[in-house]
Amino acid sequence: MTSTHAASRTPQQDRSRATRRRLLEAAVECLAELGWNGSTVAVVAERAGVTRGAAQHHFPTREDLFTAAVEHVAAERLAAVRSHSEALPEPGPARTEAVVEMIVRLYTGPLFRAALHLWVAAATEQPLRERIVTLENHVGREAHRAAVEFLGADEATPGVRETVQATLDMARGLGLANLLTDDTPRRTGIVHQWSHLLDTALRAPH
Amino acid sequence: MTSTHAASRTPQQDRSRATRRRLLEAAVECLAELGWNGSTVAVVAERAGVTRGAAQHHFPTREDLFTAAVEHVAAERLAAVRSHSEALPEPGPARTEAVVEMIVRLYTGPLFRAALHLWVAAATEQPLRERIVTLENHVGREAHRAAVEFLGADEATPGVRETVQATLDMARGLGLANLLTDDTPRRTGIVHQWSHLLDTALRAPH
Repeated sequence: MTSTHAASRTPQQDRSRATRRRLLEAAVECLAELGWNGSTVAVVAERAGVTRGAAQHHFPTREDLFTAAVEHVAAERLAAVRSHSEALPEPGPARTEAVVEMIVRLYTGPLFRAALHLWVAAATEQPLRERIVTLENHVGREAHRAAVEFLGADEATPGVRETVQATLDMARGLGLANLLTDDTPRRTGIVHQWSHLLDTALRAPH
Repeated sequence: MTSTHAASRTPQQDRSRATRRRLLEAAVECLAELGWNGSTVAVVAERAGVTRGAAQHHFPTREDLFTAAVEHVAAERLAAVRSHSEALPEPGPARTEAVVEMIVRLYTGPLFRAALHLWVAAATEQPLRERIVTLENHVGREAHRAAVEFLGADEATPGVRETVQATLDMARGLGLANLLTDDTPRRTGIVHQWSHLLDTALRAPH
């Protein structure tokens, strides 16, 4: 953030922005740990050290708070991934595996766990459903775009788009498999093998 | 069922078995449509046309009923898949694609939707958790075994086991992507492309 930009905000605006951010982060933590049933606005406000009134000032409804929270944290994670992408190896099998590991990490951490609780709640709660469909489309598109870019995949080649999509779907499946037990040993072997298949597929003449 | 076997049961036992079966099927339908919160023993009993007392006679707790239901319906679906496996094409790309389609169908229908609700509820409800871990291990192993068999995959070849596991994880991810919207068009392209990669991988010298 440039100092010019910062100077254009009042201390009051800065405090409000910091409160909003604490609420969003606390909301994702609550969802990941307690699920949708256990995640009320009051629980999140307490965890964020904010009054319930202040929480409701920022987010009038429970749906507003949790949808915004998953969107905010997903955007932050993707930005962090982008900022670390310079450290990826040169194009080749090692880079492909590093990218698959990066994607799978995104889908096996607390953010995905939180999103999963929201996703499943949205299946039976109408006020959530439309928002979550929009949110998931948006986050899914951004994740796909980042994967294509880091893999150096050429989507003009037939089949490449679907191969990258399959990789993201596999990552979602691995996220689900990690929900109740630590699936790390099994996942490590799958990620290694998938990376090999993906690397071969992306280089193969079509 | 042989007539000898049937003759060894009384009409009372037959009725009890039929009631149990109706309860299990109704429980999976309820879970898929209403989620865990909406699926009480009373709702299931009503849908099955059974008194609540009769339901509790068969399944003392809510956890008993829903865990048994997903296990029962999963076993039935796998048995149905096995009984149709004779209709699969001869080994080759067409068979591989037919098997991947079959697996993905298992993970994108009402049974997976029901299992997903149970799975996510188990993440925050201790009485469910241990049962669901056992159930998912069992169902996952059976699905893996069937996939290996139908694909004619040789798990002694390095990487083959992980390739089949990745296929099942991708199918789970596709099931999740189908929860809130009809993902059929996107899924069709992914299944076609993945079948091509899988078939190549299973035939490649390692």
